[in-house]
Amino acid sequence: MADIFPHTQTKEPADSRDLSEPLIDHAEGQLFLNETFKIIVEDVLRKGTDVNEKVCEWKEPEELALLLDLELRSTGEPQQRLLQRVKDVAKYSVKTSHPRFLNQQYAGVDYHSLSGRFLSEALNTNLHTYEVAPVFVLMENEVLRGLRHLVGWTEGDGLFWPGGSASNMCAINLARYQLFPEVKSQGLFGLPRMTIFTSPESHYSVKKGAAYLGIGTDNVIMVKVDDRGRMIPGDLDEKITLAKSQGTVPLLVSCTSGTTVQGAFDPLDQIADICEKHQIWMHVDAAWGGSVLFSKQHRHLMKGVDRANSVAWNPHKMLVAGLQCSVLLLKDTTNLLRQCHTTNATYLFQQDKFYDVSLDIGDKSVQCGRKVDCLKLWLMWKAVGTDGLAQRIDKAFLHVGYLVEQMKKREGFHLLDEPEFVNVCFWYIPSSLRGKERDADYQDRLAKVAPVIKERMVKRGTMMVGYQPLGNRVNFFRVIVFSPLVSQKDMDFFLNEIERLGNDL
Amino acid sequence: MADIFPHTQTKEPADSRDLSEPLIDHAEGQLFLNETFKIIVEDVLRKGTDVNEKVCEWKEPEELALLLDLELRSTGEPQQRLLQRVKDVAKYSVKTSHPRFLNQQYAGVDYHSLSGRFLSEALNTNLHTYEVAPVFVLMENEVLRGLRHLVGWTEGDGLFWPGGSASNMCAINLARYQLFPEVKSQGLFGLPRMTIFTSPESHYSVKKGAAYLGIGTDNVIMVKVDDRGRMIPGDLDEKITLAKSQGTVPLLVSCTSGTTVQGAFDPLDQIADICEKHQIWMHVDAAWGGSVLFSKQHRHLMKGVDRANSVAWNPHKMLVAGLQCSVLLLKDTTNLLRQCHTTNATYLFQQDKFYDVSLDIGDKSVQCGRKVDCLKLWLMWKAVGTDGLAQRIDKAFLHVGYLVEQMKKREGFHLLDEPEFVNVCFWYIPSSLRGKERDADYQDRLAKVAPVIKERMVKRGTMMVGYQPLGNRVNFFRVIVFSPLVSQKDMDFFLNEIERLGNDL
Repeated sequence: MADIFPHTQTKEPADSRDLSEPLIDHAEGQLFLNETFKIIVEDVLRKGTDVNEKVCEWKEPEELALLLDLELRSTGEPQQRLLQRVKDVAKYSVKTSHPRFLNQQYAGVDYHSLSGRFLSEALNTNLHTYEVAPVFVLMENEVLRGLRHLVGWTEGDGLFWPGGSASNMCAINLARYQLFPEVKSQGLFGLPRMTIFTSPESHYSVKKGAAYLGIGTDNVIMVKVDDRGRMIPGDLDEKITLAKSQGTVPLLVSCTSGTTVQGAFDPLDQIADICEKHQIWMHVDAAWGGSVLFSKQHRHLMKGVDRANSVAWNPHKMLVAGLQCSVLLLKDTTNLLRQCHTTNATYLFQQDKFYDVSLDIGDKSVQCGRKVDCLKLWLMWKAVGTDGLAQRIDKAFLHVGYLVEQMKKREGFHLLDEPEFVNVCFWYIPSSLRGKERDADYQDRLAKVAPVIKERMVKRGTMMVGYQPLGNRVNFFRVIVFSPLVSQKDMDFFLNEIERLGNDL
Repeated sequence: MADIFPHTQTKEPADSRDLSEPLIDHAEGQLFLNETFKIIVEDVLRKGTDVNEKVCEWKEPEELALLLDLELRSTGEPQQRLLQRVKDVAKYSVKTSHPRFLNQQYAGVDYHSLSGRFLSEALNTNLHTYEVAPVFVLMENEVLRGLRHLVGWTEGDGLFWPGGSASNMCAINLARYQLFPEVKSQGLFGLPRMTIFTSPESHYSVKKGAAYLGIGTDNVIMVKVDDRGRMIPGDLDEKITLAKSQGTVPLLVSCTSGTTVQGAFDPLDQIADICEKHQIWMHVDAAWGGSVLFSKQHRHLMKGVDRANSVAWNPHKMLVAGLQCSVLLLKDTTNLLRQCHTTNATYLFQQDKFYDVSLDIGDKSVQCGRKVDCLKLWLMWKAVGTDGLAQRIDKAFLHVGYLVEQMKKREGFHLLDEPEFVNVCFWYIPSSLRGKERDADYQDRLAKVAPVIKERMVKRGTMMVGYQPLGNRVNFFRVIVFSPLVSQKDMDFFLNEIERLGNDL
């Protein structure tokens, strides 16, 4: 790279007692930002989404540490050296926007969303008061309203949280506060044991939340699922009845719309009946699956969601809004969220302000500083409309349909089940294992296939896809197809590449 | 604005059954991003830091809602209309980087940090595994090491959290887990009442955390402070002894380095003696003040911090790293953080991976998805070095010294106290109130001064500074001076403007 900052390297150190000039040189700073922007466009967005380029550039940790020279030192570095660092960070980072990053639920890129993210970063404000975030207080409210509308609620409440785990956790806290408002001041000491119900295929954040909130993971009762990973309502009813008979207070049922591994949708309508019968808070963890609500064709998967008390939904997943973008939506109209969390800090939420202080929404949260996560989703939504977002969801299902159809035509691909959503779970059976299903060591050998294929693909950098065991099922791949950047040829490539990497095993 | 997207407005809708092409048009998207970048540079970074431009463009909520046209509709909008929206968002947002935004602790801008933020956003990955975030797993580790070194620890642990409130809350959870590991599985039911000690001038997140974790705000015991807002160690000792005698289990002392309003530093060394005596977890909330550790001249304010068990520190505040950038640093070397939070989710933290899985740090957190917040700080630190960051801290103190000196020269400015840090708390006394200190209605009238001046300054848009009451002290201003963009003339402007806006009251 040619040095575009020759003049900056011989600058004299500033006189530290001189207060007449600021410490930041805007011209030099903006030049650096401009050069970084070019690297982002070229290395992250262009090359990083080009199927002829690698998804990842694997290095062993020790080697990567050497390459990056991470150490923080006393003196600063020349601009040109820093730009090289920007290039290195881009080079050795995984290209999650790449059409062949099929590893996790944050694949792809949307340019309007990304524009909103850059603008949010540059504006660097805080969603706690109207005073410092007038645009975003109103905008967050409007985005929440739009999402609630898709759930089927004409009124309600909600807030953006830093991720689905935090959103789920907040739901538990609200359910607890509604039942035992004294917990806020007195804690759980002396109160009866409380229980939470979810399925073993729900996200691990339900357990983490229970531990964090002082309820305890043992008090998270696991409700049975069917083969596809969907909660069995009858078993939920029994488990609640049993928990009551044991003297515990059932607090909340956390259903899942789009389980992490299988992409299963719990039967919300039937679960709502049971929650109503027992008068328990019904929470829907739709962090992954919530976006089907945009699709007229697929929203039936969440039939009954309007009967829930709360819904967690991560637009940073299937809607490609970018990390982090997560909401907790509430049916509540009694200001429960604010009552549960407020501490009325007088230095921030002054009551003698000259505007309507109900717009100072920060006290609804358990955060103080809170990043602006609504702009990216709002701008993308404005850009393509509800219909455009629906089209992306529908197309993801079509891609999955195509992929499954092709898998069935090929030897070696064995589906766990017909996918209900855009998670496709399958074993790849190398030639050497075909027809050996009855061998004593078949499962052990099969379990070792996915990790080896994964290692090979990462080291080649051709694509990324995750694997895991589940219950008594040994390691299988879970491919997730939803990025608006994928097309049919990426599906074909995926299948060919799995065969190429795994056939000799 | 000239329309640079004429060709995009007549495009035919795509055939939704056609899987041969992706839904995203890279050329058009990158063009939009490029135009947004230009608006950011011009409207947010150039105009937004120009003292001849407004800090804020005040609009009443109803009027702003109309101007922004926030509603989310079925169909998308033309690119040119969207670019106008980007401009509008920038226009009506508060310019927190402006040298005259003295309102809160996220003022100013650093271009290297901002470059790191843009890059983090574009890379859109997740700090849970080495597999998807190889660069950032190593980088976060190095940044944490660098910050721990400033605390005085050669080893330890830590993690980035979404804000200081979350960091403080985690410290409470760790203290609780260390004492009662069974809380994780069994919850607080049946356990003795636990107590937390802090000062009434500590951040409200200590109470929020206690409520959230099921400990309860009543179990947060308030320790007396001196006039300057510093915790009184003798009173802490007494309160702990009393709490024990009442059968509660003291869990944690949360000291503050840099209180929110007065900028006070609790005497850590003396508090450490008491924590040692009673064997209680010592937490230091240095979200605001922690950055003094960079300064050889001012780090004495936190003498004794190395004796703490945990330190929360927000580089998004005084270091201008950008929201959000917050760490919890731990002295612990026993892997307490991981043990306390792990749930061993097999779909994400597979143990049969081909690399050292101790690098999969996500299970240390209670989040699952976790934004990359280390790159911005790392790049800025590399750019100016430890010495450069120290210089910024030192300069902030010099600005405060100058401001205080000038205040003393002017009638009408009455300091609460000599500042210990970069918070300057003062009453502005309009001519009509001078010499009336003994009037019965003096305090009532004084309380009304700051809100009126604040309203006037916001509506003029000339600057922003916060006010609040504190204990029995009526509304006073708190000006915070640390942005690397300020210079002496901004201090002079500030004083003149307060007089101009308030003298007739």
